[in-house]
Amino acid sequence: MEINILGCGSATPSLRHLPACQVVEHRGQLMMVDCGEGAQLSMRRKGLNFGRLNHIFLSHLHGDHCLGLPGLLSTMDLQDRGGTITVHTFADGAGMFRKIMDFFCRERTYDLQFNILDPRSPQIVLETDSLTVETLPLKHRVPAVGFIFREKPKPRHLRGDMARFLQIPVSRLKGIKEDGEDYITPDGRLFTNEQLTTPADPSVSYAYCSDTLYMPSLAEAVKGVDVLYHEATYADDCADKARARFHSTASQAATVARDAGVGRLVLGHFSKAYRNEEMHLAQARAIFPNTIAADEGMTIPVLPAAK
Amino acid sequence: MEINILGCGSATPSLRHLPACQVVEHRGQLMMVDCGEGAQLSMRRKGLNFGRLNHIFLSHLHGDHCLGLPGLLSTMDLQDRGGTITVHTFADGAGMFRKIMDFFCRERTYDLQFNILDPRSPQIVLETDSLTVETLPLKHRVPAVGFIFREKPKPRHLRGDMARFLQIPVSRLKGIKEDGEDYITPDGRLFTNEQLTTPADPSVSYAYCSDTLYMPSLAEAVKGVDVLYHEATYADDCADKARARFHSTASQAATVARDAGVGRLVLGHFSKAYRNEEMHLAQARAIFPNTIAADEGMTIPVLPAAK
Repeated sequence: MEINILGCGSATPSLRHLPACQVVEHRGQLMMVDCGEGAQLSMRRKGLNFGRLNHIFLSHLHGDHCLGLPGLLSTMDLQDRGGTITVHTFADGAGMFRKIMDFFCRERTYDLQFNILDPRSPQIVLETDSLTVETLPLKHRVPAVGFIFREKPKPRHLRGDMARFLQIPVSRLKGIKEDGEDYITPDGRLFTNEQLTTPADPSVSYAYCSDTLYMPSLAEAVKGVDVLYHEATYADDCADKARARFHSTASQAATVARDAGVGRLVLGHFSKAYRNEEMHLAQARAIFPNTIAADEGMTIPVLPAAK
Repeated sequence: MEINILGCGSATPSLRHLPACQVVEHRGQLMMVDCGEGAQLSMRRKGLNFGRLNHIFLSHLHGDHCLGLPGLLSTMDLQDRGGTITVHTFADGAGMFRKIMDFFCRERTYDLQFNILDPRSPQIVLETDSLTVETLPLKHRVPAVGFIFREKPKPRHLRGDMARFLQIPVSRLKGIKEDGEDYITPDGRLFTNEQLTTPADPSVSYAYCSDTLYMPSLAEAVKGVDVLYHEATYADDCADKARARFHSTASQAATVARDAGVGRLVLGHFSKAYRNEEMHLAQARAIFPNTIAADEGMTIPVLPAAK
């Protein structure tokens, strides 16, 4: 799993940061989280293939998190891509974007679906063979949710060397790696699953929390995720402003990361009032050392945290 | 008068060109023509002051000409700019953008007005002390208009040297330079306007014609403008495609420029199918030599054509 940061600024695009947008890549599938203005151009710059994007998750309906959607959806229409694109958003957003798309791009070359999110309680909004995506209610000036991407448990690895040594055809063993079953040969010899397989790769998880007021309870909800992206619109000098506008500071983001025991913290959604994010980083690292600041074009691998 | 090219691509943003947008600067006022996605960021990059932008003219309601509007209007709201912003567009566009803005940015720090354009016949849509802006019906797949910016006649220049020589206070002569009147001194001596003034600077004019099928009749409508921006989505190799999609080729743009006797032709609205615009330029210059290709970031002065 990899996170492509396409925009990590707040409110308006600046010469340093673009509005909120990122693309989670998992097994060749692309899932977009938020879609600020310019999302489609950032995808192109980063070489991300529009044809592999089927899900777009919107955290909330402020313009800096979703005004890139009409342009992106229009461009995907011009590509004759077919298939289904699902936009996960609240009911009023679905109504608005449906109107916009019916105005600018009524005849579409793909099926545009809206999956209506409930901002009040966590729900699984996408489940595939290998992954779930779950919402996470946040506290902002308008209804807002975060998203947790969790890989499902993976199968154990077959030991080809052992199969060859025991002269068992590998094709016969395929079932046992998912189920953890033992294997009995046609002549009655039993081999345990542990003899024939090595442990599965760990499943990784990623949580996106933006925009939100500092929520101590979030630590429980994102407990142990491998990577946490948490908004840090402000450094601690603007704690009052953060509270007033339902945003977080760098220290607050780091406190959530520390209390949740995450693997790595990525700060983002930076106010354009700052010249750089050095202050954010210093303040966060004092609380949670394994912190980085997001930047446009960055690709962040979601690796299993040492546990 | 100066034209700032912020976007001169067609359909979708590419790594070479952004969607249609330009800003006409005249006496410190900014007027935007079309507002493709990313318009606000391009303004920032070019150092154009949002506070001086009061009129936005939309040629037609395809997304690549107007999807930057919600973001731009939202950002201008955050700047507490006050005053009035007028968007000149067709009735259905006004309805749509009003809905979008009421959804994303209901309480605004400025007065947002829509001036409804009639796509069927030319009309003066803006008149200031020094300038008129007039529409120009075009032929596209949807209703579309171009815009002509015409400076009003300017006052003649007072000859300070002559006033001093004749010992007439310059303040007494102010009225005569606008009206072309003669001046009679308190003791009855007459001085002709030609004695006391030098000719006014020529007034310049600029026509924006995009998107449109080749229209021979356009030459009459833009006759003698100093600068003509004409779409050349395709080079001549795609003349059939141009016709089918109601676009123009480079040669067709140049033919309009030649037949209209304009000062200079600027080609734009380039399809991303081309690696560069060398072919467009060569084909256009064979018909109308004083042709340039637009590019993002370019500033084009509107100078009086030699006539």
